[in-house]
Amino acid sequence: MNEKLNMTMLCDFYELTMGNGYFQSGMKDKITYFDIFFRKVPDDGGYAIMAGLEQAIDYINDLHFSAEDIAYLRNRNIFSEDFLTYLADFRFTGDVWAVPEGTPIFPGEPVMVVRAPAIQAQLLETFLLLTINHQSLIATKSNRICRAAEGRAVLEFGSRRAQGADAAILGARAAYIGGCAGTACTISDELYGVPAGGTMAHAWVQMFDSEYDAFRAYCEIYPTNATLLVDTYDTLKQGIPNAIRAFNDVLKPQGITKCGIRLDSGDIAYLTKKARKLLDDAGWTDCKITVSNSLDEYLIRDLLHQGAQIDTFGVGERLITSKSEPVFGGVYKLCAVETDSGEIIPKIKISENVAKITNPGFKHVYRFYEKETGKAHADYICLHDETVDDAQDLTIRDPNATWKELTLKGSTFVAQELLVPIFKGGKQVYQSPTLPEIKNYCTRQMDTLWPEVTRFDNPHNYYVDLSDKLLNLRNTMLTEKKHQS
Amino acid sequence: MNEKLNMTMLCDFYELTMGNGYFQSGMKDKITYFDIFFRKVPDDGGYAIMAGLEQAIDYINDLHFSAEDIAYLRNRNIFSEDFLTYLADFRFTGDVWAVPEGTPIFPGEPVMVVRAPAIQAQLLETFLLLTINHQSLIATKSNRICRAAEGRAVLEFGSRRAQGADAAILGARAAYIGGCAGTACTISDELYGVPAGGTMAHAWVQMFDSEYDAFRAYCEIYPTNATLLVDTYDTLKQGIPNAIRAFNDVLKPQGITKCGIRLDSGDIAYLTKKARKLLDDAGWTDCKITVSNSLDEYLIRDLLHQGAQIDTFGVGERLITSKSEPVFGGVYKLCAVETDSGEIIPKIKISENVAKITNPGFKHVYRFYEKETGKAHADYICLHDETVDDAQDLTIRDPNATWKELTLKGSTFVAQELLVPIFKGGKQVYQSPTLPEIKNYCTRQMDTLWPEVTRFDNPHNYYVDLSDKLLNLRNTMLTEKKHQS
Repeated sequence: MNEKLNMTMLCDFYELTMGNGYFQSGMKDKITYFDIFFRKVPDDGGYAIMAGLEQAIDYINDLHFSAEDIAYLRNRNIFSEDFLTYLADFRFTGDVWAVPEGTPIFPGEPVMVVRAPAIQAQLLETFLLLTINHQSLIATKSNRICRAAEGRAVLEFGSRRAQGADAAILGARAAYIGGCAGTACTISDELYGVPAGGTMAHAWVQMFDSEYDAFRAYCEIYPTNATLLVDTYDTLKQGIPNAIRAFNDVLKPQGITKCGIRLDSGDIAYLTKKARKLLDDAGWTDCKITVSNSLDEYLIRDLLHQGAQIDTFGVGERLITSKSEPVFGGVYKLCAVETDSGEIIPKIKISENVAKITNPGFKHVYRFYEKETGKAHADYICLHDETVDDAQDLTIRDPNATWKELTLKGSTFVAQELLVPIFKGGKQVYQSPTLPEIKNYCTRQMDTLWPEVTRFDNPHNYYVDLSDKLLNLRNTMLTEKKHQS
Repeated sequence: MNEKLNMTMLCDFYELTMGNGYFQSGMKDKITYFDIFFRKVPDDGGYAIMAGLEQAIDYINDLHFSAEDIAYLRNRNIFSEDFLTYLADFRFTGDVWAVPEGTPIFPGEPVMVVRAPAIQAQLLETFLLLTINHQSLIATKSNRICRAAEGRAVLEFGSRRAQGADAAILGARAAYIGGCAGTACTISDELYGVPAGGTMAHAWVQMFDSEYDAFRAYCEIYPTNATLLVDTYDTLKQGIPNAIRAFNDVLKPQGITKCGIRLDSGDIAYLTKKARKLLDDAGWTDCKITVSNSLDEYLIRDLLHQGAQIDTFGVGERLITSKSEPVFGGVYKLCAVETDSGEIIPKIKISENVAKITNPGFKHVYRFYEKETGKAHADYICLHDETVDDAQDLTIRDPNATWKELTLKGSTFVAQELLVPIFKGGKQVYQSPTLPEIKNYCTRQMDTLWPEVTRFDNPHNYYVDLSDKLLNLRNTMLTEKKHQS
């Protein structure tokens, strides 16, 4: 159904009316800078996980308007023929910087910067936001859920409740980056290498004359992959005894000790403890217990706290939709334009809501790590022409409470640039790591965060501070704009 | 990026392991019946809107495994070569019935029924659920939001916050079915005919030396489509006066009176009242006011209650993700199998949770309308071999509280079958109406619901009752299954 779907047209219509307007106003080649940043971590968390960059890269590489697209636009009767002709040869010629996937990111800092002629940069807005917002949302939720599972495997089971096909397919990708061990979604494995697995639904059990027959048949067909769903009729009285009987009858004679059961309903804490005892008493100590029943990070934490006997969690709708907070609020804001002579003129968007005021200018972001512990201590946003020498002491301050300052001693900290070049002059200069590499990188990156930042309840606000120069620029522009007529 | 994406592989992996299992167990041609139904209306509402059927039809028509798919599956080393050979020629040969898009639907009733050989029916589970769940979720939310707007236009503005590309594209389609007048998502117009529109973002204003210059330029380029975004700097002191000045300078000389402003931040109730006065005082009484700032049905109702002066609502993240409840919990459950001689054997899934027990058997659903008012009074689920004669009196009862009964007088009510044939023997026998037809049908269907059912707070539970025969079958099967070992 999505054959040859051209994502170029997945744009807000105003990007095209503005594009035509820039064209008509002689501004089409005016170089603009746009930042993507977000203002709040979902679930009141202390960090988010960057994801979706690979799909952003694919999108940019694939940007073009087909003849059908041009015909559709011509039909709207509001675009000039010159502009339509321009679109027919449209391709991206700009620069992009971004934070690599799997990196912890924080509110207020640019996670992607686009520098391109106005029409191009404007057109990218919707799709870049959509892919970064969606995958960062799911990667962040997945990371929370996996941390709650304390090392136990978490599998993504939510395709059927995902908000469309891409939400299922790429949601599984993002969930894997965030920490999930695998997915139930077959195509995510085929396309992206997210390990897919699964065994049976209730229908399998119902198809046979008895539950035992269903279990026995499954063990015979998949002796090395027999995870039996035990809650179709009565978990403790029928399901688990029938599973043990099937294991005894089919697996034992083959010397197979690895097997599993899955519970999809009922009181998980109680049932898994009972199940563990029944299995152990029958000698099936290697039998793994998987549970899957409307789980999230809080329920998982609670189940483990109650001593539930669980080896693997299958998490569905609450992960694939990030149900408790299903929106990642990344925005795309103009922060600068270039004059014909290449001078960078900062731009600001003012709002009644202080939190919505943007940081003007073309900016760099540095993360300061404590040398001794390797822990990330603060992010520091400065203008592009400032240099950060991490051998020197640096005093940073909270942009919204400038009396809160902190001196990072040069001898103690090392700084690293967060934004890396992705496109240069329209040419891709960054090669995405493999998905397992991104996942491993995410795990290592999480180790750089203090537990105070990663806890679920009332996490510490990680410092994202502005350079004095940037802060002064912002304040000056605010005052000027408020006073101009 | 989604070129030639074959949705057949968007299945839970267990559908393939079960498929191979049915194949190995000699059950591949066993005819099965699966129901799709849901248990709870999102947002504690009293009704949902069916959507996503057209995409389900496209998916079924397009079902096939490519050579790459087969190669991927072979690589997994758990599927038999016989099964893989079977998949290479796989196509759907079964029957499907469904409730047409735009119809109000209620918990507990089948909204889609699949009758097909076991492997086929099993494979459809994930994608059918995904498309029906997603689009019904958004159509339902859209309908709520549009009802809150009391006849004012609601535009879908959420692509950038959608959970992936399909969520944006098909979410806009579903929002249109539910009542939205249009979308910002260009490709939804190109592909599905959802009217797309839009004018400018803050970036347009920031690109010019002054807000007035930006407004003036826009009015010159789009004199008949000038909706100016007035909140980049200061809405009342700068934005609206500059908009009026641009209208006066550019539109007035051309005799144009139609124009608009858009507000995207601040206190909407206060600002729109002030804006309306400023515009009216300046003679721009035809200037429409659009607002777009994290709106949903409750905020819209509240704004109108406060006397906000709004002509059009742009609704973003809270519609496109159904933020307050982002999951539509449709499930896909085996309800019957056929013997070789064609006898239909009902199947049941039992659960500790009474609400999760399924209704066994191949079923029909009738909706009873009161002749005098045209209002829908109750839905009635019966077994396929029961006939409903709406000329006769019929006593129906609540399946979970059988003492609650209601007699529908034959002289007063007329019954209509809800499920219509979609596929017969693998061949599509239903032609989807056009999208505007579906939208109009939805509007007319909403008129058949009593206000008690459609109100937001504590709506009346619309009756979805079972025939005595179905109720007896269910009770008998429950007792039998509980007692079998």
